[in-house]
Amino acid sequence: MSLSRYFPILEWGRGYHKTAFTNDVVAALIVTIMLIPQSLAYAMLAGLPPEVGLYASILPLVAYAIFGTSRALAVGPVAVVSLMTATAAGNIAAQGSPEYMTAAIAMALISGLMMVGMGLLRLGFLANLLSHPVVSGFITASGLIIATSQLKSLLGINAGGDTMPALLGSLYAHIGQTNLPTLIIGMSATLFLFWVRKGLKPLLVRLGLQPRVAELLAKAGPIAAVAVSILAVVSLDLEGAGVKTVGHIPQSLPPFAMPGFDPDLWVRLLVPALLLSVIGFVESVSVARTLAARKRQRIVPDQELIGLGMSNLASAVSGGYPVTGGFARSVVNFDAGADTPAAGAFTAIGIAFAALFMTPWLSHLPVATLAATIVVAVLSLVDLKTPRMVWHYAKGDFAAMAATVLVTLLAGVEIGVIAGVGLNLALYLYRASRPHAAIVGRVPGTEHFRNVKRCDVLTAPHLLSIRIDESLTYLNAGWLEEFVLESVAARPQMRHLILMCSAVNTIDASALESLEAINHRLADSGVRLHLSEVKGPVMDALQHAHLLKDLTGHVYMSQNQAFSELILDNGDHDGRLRPENDLWLARGLI
Amino acid sequence: MSLSRYFPILEWGRGYHKTAFTNDVVAALIVTIMLIPQSLAYAMLAGLPPEVGLYASILPLVAYAIFGTSRALAVGPVAVVSLMTATAAGNIAAQGSPEYMTAAIAMALISGLMMVGMGLLRLGFLANLLSHPVVSGFITASGLIIATSQLKSLLGINAGGDTMPALLGSLYAHIGQTNLPTLIIGMSATLFLFWVRKGLKPLLVRLGLQPRVAELLAKAGPIAAVAVSILAVVSLDLEGAGVKTVGHIPQSLPPFAMPGFDPDLWVRLLVPALLLSVIGFVESVSVARTLAARKRQRIVPDQELIGLGMSNLASAVSGGYPVTGGFARSVVNFDAGADTPAAGAFTAIGIAFAALFMTPWLSHLPVATLAATIVVAVLSLVDLKTPRMVWHYAKGDFAAMAATVLVTLLAGVEIGVIAGVGLNLALYLYRASRPHAAIVGRVPGTEHFRNVKRCDVLTAPHLLSIRIDESLTYLNAGWLEEFVLESVAARPQMRHLILMCSAVNTIDASALESLEAINHRLADSGVRLHLSEVKGPVMDALQHAHLLKDLTGHVYMSQNQAFSELILDNGDHDGRLRPENDLWLARGLI
Repeated sequence: MSLSRYFPILEWGRGYHKTAFTNDVVAALIVTIMLIPQSLAYAMLAGLPPEVGLYASILPLVAYAIFGTSRALAVGPVAVVSLMTATAAGNIAAQGSPEYMTAAIAMALISGLMMVGMGLLRLGFLANLLSHPVVSGFITASGLIIATSQLKSLLGINAGGDTMPALLGSLYAHIGQTNLPTLIIGMSATLFLFWVRKGLKPLLVRLGLQPRVAELLAKAGPIAAVAVSILAVVSLDLEGAGVKTVGHIPQSLPPFAMPGFDPDLWVRLLVPALLLSVIGFVESVSVARTLAARKRQRIVPDQELIGLGMSNLASAVSGGYPVTGGFARSVVNFDAGADTPAAGAFTAIGIAFAALFMTPWLSHLPVATLAATIVVAVLSLVDLKTPRMVWHYAKGDFAAMAATVLVTLLAGVEIGVIAGVGLNLALYLYRASRPHAAIVGRVPGTEHFRNVKRCDVLTAPHLLSIRIDESLTYLNAGWLEEFVLESVAARPQMRHLILMCSAVNTIDASALESLEAINHRLADSGVRLHLSEVKGPVMDALQHAHLLKDLTGHVYMSQNQAFSELILDNGDHDGRLRPENDLWLARGLI
Repeated sequence: MSLSRYFPILEWGRGYHKTAFTNDVVAALIVTIMLIPQSLAYAMLAGLPPEVGLYASILPLVAYAIFGTSRALAVGPVAVVSLMTATAAGNIAAQGSPEYMTAAIAMALISGLMMVGMGLLRLGFLANLLSHPVVSGFITASGLIIATSQLKSLLGINAGGDTMPALLGSLYAHIGQTNLPTLIIGMSATLFLFWVRKGLKPLLVRLGLQPRVAELLAKAGPIAAVAVSILAVVSLDLEGAGVKTVGHIPQSLPPFAMPGFDPDLWVRLLVPALLLSVIGFVESVSVARTLAARKRQRIVPDQELIGLGMSNLASAVSGGYPVTGGFARSVVNFDAGADTPAAGAFTAIGIAFAALFMTPWLSHLPVATLAATIVVAVLSLVDLKTPRMVWHYAKGDFAAMAATVLVTLLAGVEIGVIAGVGLNLALYLYRASRPHAAIVGRVPGTEHFRNVKRCDVLTAPHLLSIRIDESLTYLNAGWLEEFVLESVAARPQMRHLILMCSAVNTIDASALESLEAINHRLADSGVRLHLSEVKGPVMDALQHAHLLKDLTGHVYMSQNQAFSELILDNGDHDGRLRPENDLWLARGLI
C-alpha cells in the first residue's frame, strides 16, 4: 500500500495487459517521431550539443514511468525549461565551455533533489504561489524571448542575450551578416510547419483520412521538415554556402556518470534551480490534471514532484539536462491512445534507437530547421486571450500578470518569476490584511441581518453589530483592532458591540490576542463585547483560551437572539423598549 | 487637510494651551531622568560610545513630535533595536572602529528612508507579516541574548558573540578573569534596581505618598544607582582596582553631518535595516495603539512609519543610531500626564541639557551599573505566559514561535526574524491552500443545510452539495479542482453538483479559471455544475467573466431552492420524487 504510493508502477503494472501494451506501443511510436526533432531543437535552445537533448529523452522517461502518477504525461526537454537552463548556465560560463555543460547537468541534479525533497515533505502546495495569471504571463513572455532568440539561427547570424532589449539590440547589430541560403531554409521550414499545423489536417481529412489519424499524421510534420532540409543541404552542398548544420553527433547511448559536487556552483544555482523546479512542476501538473480529468483518473501532486524529480536525477546521471512534462507531447500521447506510463518507457526505447542508429544522418541537419521547429512550437505559448479576460475580471491579478510579462521581457526569466510571485503575494496579503466587514442591522419583520449600506435595516445607537467576512488571522488582527476601536470611538452612545462571526472560519493566536485586547479596551470605555454565530470548530478552539472567561458580554447562538436581547438594554434601566427613540432606518443615520 | 495628514503637529498644535504645556513639561522631566541612564546603556549595548545614545535622544524626539501620530509615544534608543544594530554593524567591522560607527549611522539612515518610503506608499500592512507569537518569541529571545551579553560587564571580563552558544562559550572561557570590585558594583546595582522595581513603590506608599507619585519616583531608581556608583568609584578610587568606567564623554550638542553614501555598505545593510525597521515599527505601533486606546484616541500606522522614519533620519544626521518607540518609557510618559507629542520635544531639551552640562560627571560611571540597568530592563521582555497560552490554543502558531526563539538564540536576531516570519507565512499559505469544505445535506423538516459528517441530513446519490468555507483564490484553486473532481470521480451516479458559496467572499482570476475548468470537465462526464448563495459582490464581479454564460447549470439564490429543484431531476425522466430510493440519512452512506 505504502510502497505503491511511492511506486505507482506497482499499481498499474499489476493489471497490465496486451491491449494496453499495443496502445502504448503505438502512442510511443508517434511521440518518438515528434520528440526526435524537438529534443535536438530544445538542447540547442538550452545552448547544449544536440545529443544532450536525446540523452534527456531516454532515462528520464523510464524514471517517470516508474514514479509518475499521470498515465499520459510525456516528459522530456521543453522550451521554457530549456530557456531557464540556458539563462542559469549562461551566468556561470560561456556557451560551449565544459563549465557550461557542468552547470546544465548540475541544474538537473539540484532541481531533481529539490523536487524529490519537496515531494517527500509534501510541499507541493508551495507551487500554488504561482497564480494562473503569473504563469500565463511568464509563459507568454518566455515564448516571445525564445522566438526572438531563434531569429539569429533563421537568419544565419551570431546574436544573443537573455532579455528582449539585449536580443533585439544584438540582432540589429548583426542583421547585415544575414546568410541568404539559411534564410531561405529557415523561412521555408517555418512556413511549412505553420501550414502543417493549420492546413494539413483539413487536407488529409478531405483526402478521406479519419480526423484522428489525420491529426496524428500532421504531428510528423517536423520530422518531414528535418528529412527534406537534410536532403536539400546534402544535394545542394549548402554547407559550403554558409548554412550552419548540427554537425557530428556521437553515435551512442547516454554516458552514465555521477555529476560532480562543487559547493560554490551549487550555491549559485540554488535559486535558478528552485525557480526551474517550480515552473516545471506547475506546467507539468496542469497538463497532467487536464488529461487525467478526461478519463476521470487522478494524479497525486506530491507524488508528481517525486516522479519529475527522479526524472531530473535520471537526466543528470546520464548526461542530460532539466526535463519536465511537455504540453503538446502529452496531448499527442493521450490522443494516440497511451494507456499507461509504459508508453513513456517505450518512447525511451525509440529515442535510444535513434541515438544509436539515426545520428549519422542528422549531422547535415540545418540549425535553421530546428529554429523553425522551436519558433512554431513556442508561438502557441503566447496567450493573448487570458490577459484580456483577466483585465476585465480582476485588476489586481492583471497587474501581477503585466508585471511578470514586463519584468521577464526586460530583465530575464528568473527576475520575472520572482517579481510576479512577489507582487501577487503582496496583493494577496494586502487584501487579507484588510478584509471585508459590514455594519449590519435587522431587516424589518425578519430574522435576517444585512449591511446598513446596502439595505434599509433597523439599528440602535447603543448597539452596534459588525459582521466580519473573513477568518481572523495575524494578517488582519491589527486591522480588526483599528476597525472596531474606530467604530466605537465614533459612537459615544454605544454600550454593546456584537461581532457576528458567521464567516469566521478560524481565529489564530494573534487574532485571539487582538480580541482580548479589544475586550479589555472596550471595557475601559464602558462597552460590552458580544459574539454571535460562532462556528462549531472556532468555538471548540476557544475553549482552550481565556477570551470566553474574560468576555464582558455573551456568546449568542444567533445574531437575532443577540440583537433582540441587547436592544432592550438601552440604558433606561426599566427594560422597556421605546421604538420611537431607539430604532430607526439606518440609511443616512449611521 | 492633506498637509496636517503628513504633519500631525498642525492638528494638535493649533489647540495647544497652557494646561497641556504644564502637563507635557512635567512628563518630559520624568522621562528625561529615566532616559539619561537608558540612552547611555543602550548605546553601550549597541557597541557605540555613550554619547551616541544621548545624540539619538535629542533630534529624533523633535522629529517624532512633528510627524508622529501618537500623543504618548516616547522614542529613542531601545534594547532590541540596539542589539540588532550591534549585530548588523558587527558584520561590517570591529566594535570601536570608525567603520563600525559609520555602519551604525548608515543603519539609521537606511531604515529611516525605508520607513518613510513604506509610509508614503502605505505599505504599513507588510508589518502584519510579523504575527504576535513570532514577535513575542523574538523579543523574549532577544531579551535573553541581551541579558547574557551584559554578564561580561557585570563580571568585568572580556567576552562577546551574537548568539547564545557563542556568548556562553566566550563567558565560560574568560570567567577566571572576573574582577571582584566590578562584580560587587554590578550585583549591588542589579539587586538595587530589582528592589526599586518591586519593593520601592509599596514602601513609598506605606510612607504616605500617593500611589501615582510613588510609581513615578520609583522610575528615578536607575539615576540613583548611577549617582551612587559614581560616588563609590570616585571616593574609593575603584578605577585603580580595575573597575571599567564610561570614560571621557564629549561635552557638546550632537555633531550635524550628512552621512556618507557607500553603495557596497548599503547593499550589505539592506536586509538588516529592513528587519530593524519592521521590528521597530511593530513594537512601536503596538505600544502607541495600547496607549491611544486608553484615551479613545487613534493612531495612523502609515503616518507612524513616516514619524519613526523621520526620527531615524534625524538620528542619522546628528551622529545617532537607530531609534524607535520604547515601551517602558512611553508608559511612564503617559502615566506622568503627557498630553501631546510636545512632551517629546521637551524631553529632547532635557537630554540636550544633560549632554552639555552633565557629561563631565558621568565619566566615572562604572560600566557595570549600566549593564545592571540593561539586565533589569530586558528581563521584563522575557515573556513566559504567551508561549503557554499559544501552545494550548494553536499548535501551528506555537511552532512558529518556538522556531523564532530557537533560531534567534542559536543563529542570531536576523536569521531568527526571517525564520519566524517564513515559517508563519508558510503555515498560513498551507492552510489557505487547503481550506475547509463540507459535503452538506438538508436537515430534515427545515431549510437548513449542514455537514453530513456532523448531522443526520438528507442527500441523494445523483446530487452533491459542497459548501466551501473560504474565499476562492489562487492559493486554493488547485485544491478546489482536485477536491471537486475527486468527489465526482467517487460518485458514478452523480448528475448535479451544487457549490454552496455562502462563505466565498471573493473569487480571483485563478479560481475563476479553475471553476471554468471544473465546469468543462464535469460536462465531459455528464455532470452539471450549479452555484448557490453567491454573495452580491462576487456576483457583481462574475458579470465580467465567461463562467456564468458557460455554466452547464444554474445560479440559485438559496441552497434550499437549488436542492429542492434538482432533487427532482433524478434521471427517471418523469420528474417524480421517490423518497424511498433517492433520499436517505447521509451518515455512513456518503
